[in-house]
Amino acid sequence: MENHRRHEVNLSPHRPFSTYFKSHLKETLFPDDPFQKFAGQPAGRRAASAVSYFIPCLQWLPTYTISSFGYDLLAGITIASLAIPQGISYAKLAEIPPIVGLYSSFVPPLVYAALGSSNNLAVGPVAAASLLMAAIIRDAVSPEEDPERYVYTIFTAAFVTGLLQLALGVFRLGIIVDFLARSTITGFMGGTAMIIILQQLKGLLGLQHFTNKTDVVSVLHAVFDNRSEAKWQSAVLGMGFLVILLVARNLKEKFPKLFWVNAISPLAVVILGGLIAFFVHGETNGISIVGDLKRGLNPVSISHLQFTSPYITVAVKAGLMTGFIALAEGVAVGRSLALLKNEQIDGNKEMIAFGMMNIAGSFTSCYLTTGPFSKSAVNHHAGCRTPMSNAVMAICMMLVLLFLAPLFEHTPLVALAAIIVVAMLGLIELHEIRRLFRVDKFDFCLCMTALLGVLFINMKTGLALSVLLSIIRALLYVARPSTCKLGKVPQTDIFRDVEQYPISASIPGILILQLGSPIYFANASYLRERITRWVRAEQNLIKGQENQDLQFVVFDMGAVGTIDNSGLGMLLEVQKMLDKQGIKVAFANPSLKVVEKMAVAEFIEKVGKQWFFLSVGEAVTGCRFAMQETS
Amino acid sequence: MENHRRHEVNLSPHRPFSTYFKSHLKETLFPDDPFQKFAGQPAGRRAASAVSYFIPCLQWLPTYTISSFGYDLLAGITIASLAIPQGISYAKLAEIPPIVGLYSSFVPPLVYAALGSSNNLAVGPVAAASLLMAAIIRDAVSPEEDPERYVYTIFTAAFVTGLLQLALGVFRLGIIVDFLARSTITGFMGGTAMIIILQQLKGLLGLQHFTNKTDVVSVLHAVFDNRSEAKWQSAVLGMGFLVILLVARNLKEKFPKLFWVNAISPLAVVILGGLIAFFVHGETNGISIVGDLKRGLNPVSISHLQFTSPYITVAVKAGLMTGFIALAEGVAVGRSLALLKNEQIDGNKEMIAFGMMNIAGSFTSCYLTTGPFSKSAVNHHAGCRTPMSNAVMAICMMLVLLFLAPLFEHTPLVALAAIIVVAMLGLIELHEIRRLFRVDKFDFCLCMTALLGVLFINMKTGLALSVLLSIIRALLYVARPSTCKLGKVPQTDIFRDVEQYPISASIPGILILQLGSPIYFANASYLRERITRWVRAEQNLIKGQENQDLQFVVFDMGAVGTIDNSGLGMLLEVQKMLDKQGIKVAFANPSLKVVEKMAVAEFIEKVGKQWFFLSVGEAVTGCRFAMQETS
Repeated sequence: MENHRRHEVNLSPHRPFSTYFKSHLKETLFPDDPFQKFAGQPAGRRAASAVSYFIPCLQWLPTYTISSFGYDLLAGITIASLAIPQGISYAKLAEIPPIVGLYSSFVPPLVYAALGSSNNLAVGPVAAASLLMAAIIRDAVSPEEDPERYVYTIFTAAFVTGLLQLALGVFRLGIIVDFLARSTITGFMGGTAMIIILQQLKGLLGLQHFTNKTDVVSVLHAVFDNRSEAKWQSAVLGMGFLVILLVARNLKEKFPKLFWVNAISPLAVVILGGLIAFFVHGETNGISIVGDLKRGLNPVSISHLQFTSPYITVAVKAGLMTGFIALAEGVAVGRSLALLKNEQIDGNKEMIAFGMMNIAGSFTSCYLTTGPFSKSAVNHHAGCRTPMSNAVMAICMMLVLLFLAPLFEHTPLVALAAIIVVAMLGLIELHEIRRLFRVDKFDFCLCMTALLGVLFINMKTGLALSVLLSIIRALLYVARPSTCKLGKVPQTDIFRDVEQYPISASIPGILILQLGSPIYFANASYLRERITRWVRAEQNLIKGQENQDLQFVVFDMGAVGTIDNSGLGMLLEVQKMLDKQGIKVAFANPSLKVVEKMAVAEFIEKVGKQWFFLSVGEAVTGCRFAMQETS
Repeated sequence: MENHRRHEVNLSPHRPFSTYFKSHLKETLFPDDPFQKFAGQPAGRRAASAVSYFIPCLQWLPTYTISSFGYDLLAGITIASLAIPQGISYAKLAEIPPIVGLYSSFVPPLVYAALGSSNNLAVGPVAAASLLMAAIIRDAVSPEEDPERYVYTIFTAAFVTGLLQLALGVFRLGIIVDFLARSTITGFMGGTAMIIILQQLKGLLGLQHFTNKTDVVSVLHAVFDNRSEAKWQSAVLGMGFLVILLVARNLKEKFPKLFWVNAISPLAVVILGGLIAFFVHGETNGISIVGDLKRGLNPVSISHLQFTSPYITVAVKAGLMTGFIALAEGVAVGRSLALLKNEQIDGNKEMIAFGMMNIAGSFTSCYLTTGPFSKSAVNHHAGCRTPMSNAVMAICMMLVLLFLAPLFEHTPLVALAAIIVVAMLGLIELHEIRRLFRVDKFDFCLCMTALLGVLFINMKTGLALSVLLSIIRALLYVARPSTCKLGKVPQTDIFRDVEQYPISASIPGILILQLGSPIYFANASYLRERITRWVRAEQNLIKGQENQDLQFVVFDMGAVGTIDNSGLGMLLEVQKMLDKQGIKVAFANPSLKVVEKMAVAEFIEKVGKQWFFLSVGEAVTGCRFAMQETS
């Protein structure tokens, strides 16, 4: 038989366990090989590389030009104009004093400018996480009864988020965020956006009483119950603002060059609303205003962080949940904008930057911040070049806090409600949901589970259900690896799935099966049954014909990336079982990791070295030769 | 280019969603294709097949011969001799009256004889599940204070187990049991066996007071604290029994034909112990006896099942946990014994049989039963032919219950303790644990987590930790699919991993990457980074040489079984990114499911149909031709 086999399978690779483990750990936690740059450099240079690796601004600042600064200045001012109304509005969603929203656009962007590696991301608070945080913290402390402690607990949650993000970045556990499927985020964001829009009915109608629950039924109920409080002045003003904002939004879509009209429209609405409220004495005429915005920079809050039960419990819960969502959004936004400029961003480094900015934020009266999509897109369109635009925004916010804050006291709540509604419309990605339905029904299910869960149960449950479902799917992926029967494509030495290529022909007496990956405990018994069924089906097929019996089963192992102990046991069982029926088993093209496992488990000796082949073609040749020898 | 390509990729397979979904569902839940036997038969015949499918005894009874019965009779009597001491001992572990252990070897085996499909399995209670059940139920009701309700709650747990097993079988969800890794079971059983052995110190030393906790520290503490209660009579007798049982066990290992000596040794010890206790008036001489075994068959218990809180809560908890373990053990035992005789057993049908026997058992004062390994192995060695041996055992037990039960009242507890110790020694598979350490370090971790968790925390936690770890591993399997660079094996058209086959050579200007399976949301960003790294490494490699630039990246998709929406998005991103660097992307050998997904997502049009090839070889030819054309 040997002269028919020119190419041997490499059956004796033996890496010691430590090497194997190290390579596995590296693939799991360091897929981007961050240390590669440092290799082969002297120690001093290596330390410098390491420092500039962790503080990216040291990389771009030395070559920073005045022309780049021009672009960043423009972009920074544009996003600052967005940061003021967004800061105030989202703080309202989190039920904290509006000034905290402004604080949160000062310190965190500064930190990000130093540590961030994305050139497009603009830092600020986000709507969905603000609402979710309020819903969780509310379980332990009421923002109405104990507003101070409530705010401090919110800061504590931001601190927890920061620690989480820092830890994920340092220990390179971005892999956990990978398990938040894009479809889950789409559904969660869409559902949350709908809830938030409905909640704005309170502001738009000028209602005084409302619900704290976040499901559709409760919110609509609250609107209906309190309809007698509605003020026409509020409603009229709200409609007007909505029209202005929607026109600005449509303008951007028709004439992309006019994106700045859209970008400054929220600030315009705030100023316009403030002027109206000021001149018509809004407060006495049915138009509630923000009120009470003290001049001054962020007060230090580090000593106010709440580390006692029950506050720390809800802070941890809120911090972890919002942290993951914020991270998933921030990293995805950074990545997709980087793609447009053909840049690379390092997910783990981003997490470290996010973590540091949230920790620093929690010490200085800021709440959770991340890189929201709307703001980052504006930053990108405005032509930002480096994270410097965040520093510019921070300086603008500093000036606002020092000098202009009290001017925004007159902002009518209805203007904020209109801004939030229009911002939220952008988060309901109907187009994406339709596409999911078309492309992947399961992704669509994940998305709808999150969306409907958020709408009709609550935000936490909707998110948790969708994540659970996606984990079950991940488990199902590995529980049922695909198997198929291969046939020879005529006039070639190529073997392909006979279902996919009906032209490919079986070899008499030989059944060729391709096994999917990975083979391990959770699918070993499935594969045993599936292989048995393939063999039975082949035997039934042959029985009808005047052909020879099934004598060989060739397993194409090319697709099997990993196999475990139970998987090898299963293959051995199958081999024994087939042997009793007089059918020999051959293995084609086992990969490196599989051969390693086979070697330590003494699988190769048990099956016989002569039954391992480099390719399916050679396995078939080998089997045919063996058939001729016996007949 | 076309004349260089003889073989087209089949790019237009389009199964409607319903077909796709049905085939997927079938693979997931019906891998063994149970309906295949019924296909193409008339309705009447099909109904008969269906009935005999669900009641396997209708298949074997019609051809049952007197000679088969001879074998089954012998095996049945042998396992009955084991069932008496085991029933009494394991009932003691579950802290229920010993007679319940005897009841449990009467009704369930009868049901199994009718519905079971394994010819080797012997039905009865098991030690580990008995102890676990007691530990859980004890949380709600104390066996000392309210013994009646305690027993009824145990019956309710058996009912829940039955329902669970029946549901898993009917809805074909055996897939859930697949996630209980063999290594987890090995560790759990080993740890539990050690705990049980330690607990027998109570019986062996004749202690009166003991602990209810199941961790090593508490048990040893209890032995130490109550050492003053120890009775020398008990200890001497216990040592004697241990020696007898261990000798019998070693005899079996040396002379396999004498297995029956080992099989009847527990009964012999019970009888011997009873005689001794009877003649020396054990009860007054420091030898506690079982006491109180009333004559009579199982009383009906259906009206005593506890469906009120808190009893139902613990019953459900205990029922589910023990149900999974019992199922995993029973199905594994049935399968491994079937393999010795080259028979097939149907996992889902077995679950239905187990479920029915536990439901019937819970109605007739039986507690949880399954197919324990020790008893089934004896059944197999004794030469059983069909499930009839279970019926024989049941009839023996009936006779015992009707006439002989009171004789066993004099059984000394120390005899039971010795029997349990020796039975448990068989469950500590040191040899298997050593093998796991050698073959698969992660499997070894799973095993040790369960074992140490059971020993030092408690049974539930040990099991839960190990299951959690195995799920995390399953998720890691799919989070980091393997990728490798392929090279051409000289003088062939075969492309293989260059790390595995250093002889294989790269093609100038073309990087060939094999992607692992599946590609989906949780690994899309990993793969993006990994591919980028491969490309970067290749470019660095080429830079040194006087060679041409990297112009093509060929993705060998042969190993990719499934891809989702995020995965396709990632590939498209990579293609765009490489395109900006002037590198073209080609795909070789996409499988049926992948092509389907690509077609609905319009991936093929976006990439260009000309970049799909049937094999890596053809892709390389195509790329080379394109290079010549442009140069």
